[in-house]
Amino acid sequence: MIDLLLLGTGGMMPMPNRWLSSLLMRIEGDLVLFDCGEGTQIPWQLYGWGFRRVGTICLSHLHADHVAGIPGLLHAIANAGRQEPVTLFGPPGTVHVVQALREIAPVLGFELRIREIDDGVRFALPGGAEGSVIRGDHALPLLCYRIDMPRGRRFLADEAAEAGIPQRFWSALQKGTDVEIDGRRIPAGRFLGPERKGLSIGFVTDTRPVPNLPGFLRGVDLLVCEGTYGDSADQHKAIDKKHMTFAEAATLAADAQAGALWLTHFSPAVNEPHEWLHNATAIFPTTTIGYSGMEASLAFPSDQD
Amino acid sequence: MIDLLLLGTGGMMPMPNRWLSSLLMRIEGDLVLFDCGEGTQIPWQLYGWGFRRVGTICLSHLHADHVAGIPGLLHAIANAGRQEPVTLFGPPGTVHVVQALREIAPVLGFELRIREIDDGVRFALPGGAEGSVIRGDHALPLLCYRIDMPRGRRFLADEAAEAGIPQRFWSALQKGTDVEIDGRRIPAGRFLGPERKGLSIGFVTDTRPVPNLPGFLRGVDLLVCEGTYGDSADQHKAIDKKHMTFAEAATLAADAQAGALWLTHFSPAVNEPHEWLHNATAIFPTTTIGYSGMEASLAFPSDQD
Repeated sequence: MIDLLLLGTGGMMPMPNRWLSSLLMRIEGDLVLFDCGEGTQIPWQLYGWGFRRVGTICLSHLHADHVAGIPGLLHAIANAGRQEPVTLFGPPGTVHVVQALREIAPVLGFELRIREIDDGVRFALPGGAEGSVIRGDHALPLLCYRIDMPRGRRFLADEAAEAGIPQRFWSALQKGTDVEIDGRRIPAGRFLGPERKGLSIGFVTDTRPVPNLPGFLRGVDLLVCEGTYGDSADQHKAIDKKHMTFAEAATLAADAQAGALWLTHFSPAVNEPHEWLHNATAIFPTTTIGYSGMEASLAFPSDQD
Repeated sequence: MIDLLLLGTGGMMPMPNRWLSSLLMRIEGDLVLFDCGEGTQIPWQLYGWGFRRVGTICLSHLHADHVAGIPGLLHAIANAGRQEPVTLFGPPGTVHVVQALREIAPVLGFELRIREIDDGVRFALPGGAEGSVIRGDHALPLLCYRIDMPRGRRFLADEAAEAGIPQRFWSALQKGTDVEIDGRRIPAGRFLGPERKGLSIGFVTDTRPVPNLPGFLRGVDLLVCEGTYGDSADQHKAIDKKHMTFAEAATLAADAQAGALWLTHFSPAVNEPHEWLHNATAIFPTTTIGYSGMEASLAFPSDQD
């Protein structure tokens, strides 16, 4: 199961009624944060997810509205008593910027490991999940994220029982390990059902819709994507500032055959994003306007599926 | 006239119901900011004072809860269209820290001038006001601020008229310039009343009450002072963390013969500062618990006084 919490939905600057765009993910109790602008720790305090279990921070890019909250967050994690390392992933340049920001957060009770990653890199996440990134197109180096939680093949217990495999070997077979019984080698795959789709989420912000993005995001259950401009008449601004309109985000979701789309990262000039929702739903019906505190839980379908 | 706006009243971290402690001052239309923790720009947007007229930023010290909002604020000032320089004053170490924070605010439409100041320094502010600082006692180098707006001596128009001084010379005499009339030198002081008290404000936070502080703050009209702990039983924490209790802040206000005291910089553990107000008012009756959005205007008494 993966739980998601949208902390904020704003671009450019935090506002009295709109926190900066940021996504929190919980995988088997451990937290993964995507972006951390000024003030991100404040809505986080409201929703009760706590700071101690943050093991991973993923940055899309190094603009202030996506990273200025890092020193405060690091203090919050330290104050929550975390002692285990925290790994922070970001595009090239991340080490320099985060070390600079740490001038005001020099002493922490945990180790901060900073990893610069780039196009095509895959990295491990809690619970056997995996992250991967590709480059987007923005004014600075920018990463689009995909998180995959693979699902094992179903163990065909009936067939194993029928074949007389003692139950003490089932666990190993289920995990995909071959076993030897009375000198006879049993390949794990013999009692595993067909491949099953896992869970997957895309986090895409502050980029133009680059050509390889739909393929990278193919089949994600949920795409959390920027929609800086609601009005399609602002397309030229989206091109100029290297962002997306609602219609472009919806087109991306459709092309990627995503399950659902959450829009976020609204321009301060977009007072009421709901007014423009129709520009997205006309292209991709299962679009929702994000809001601070919006939650969802993605779970594998029941084991019989 | 000096207008004051308390933007926040929290210490250590911004909270959903309490912004970090920060004071905004308006002198003849120009703004002076005291401290800038994470999120300071957010309440600022609420109260309509605008960002373009910020010419001066004064930092008490370099802990994150007093400076982490600087990159976001610099962006807000730039977005408001300011082109005139902004001067930022702070204790030794400020250049290094603010330059590090500017890694995420590298391009601004104005020049940021960073001035490290220390014990005894005086500096010019808008409208003929003057700032001065002394060292406090905290874990890092810390400055206590005093702002003085001097008041000119009253021009004795009746006496000037009686002495036959033509009105065209009055303005110069009023400004303290000697004039010559028909070869006769008229000293400015001849038609000026006695010295008059100006306006003055103290801004003191994150320090123990050091011995020279009452003298430095002598007679301020308003002291904006930290009261991290309301309960006097937390005195040992105040000593340990180098802060003040409400009672200590009130004692400082009384010793300095201040006109009024605003308490701010409450510990996150102090849920309801009003519960402890009596600990201050018992010592210094004109104490108020600060809140975000609290405003005051200090003006010279009418010219007849």
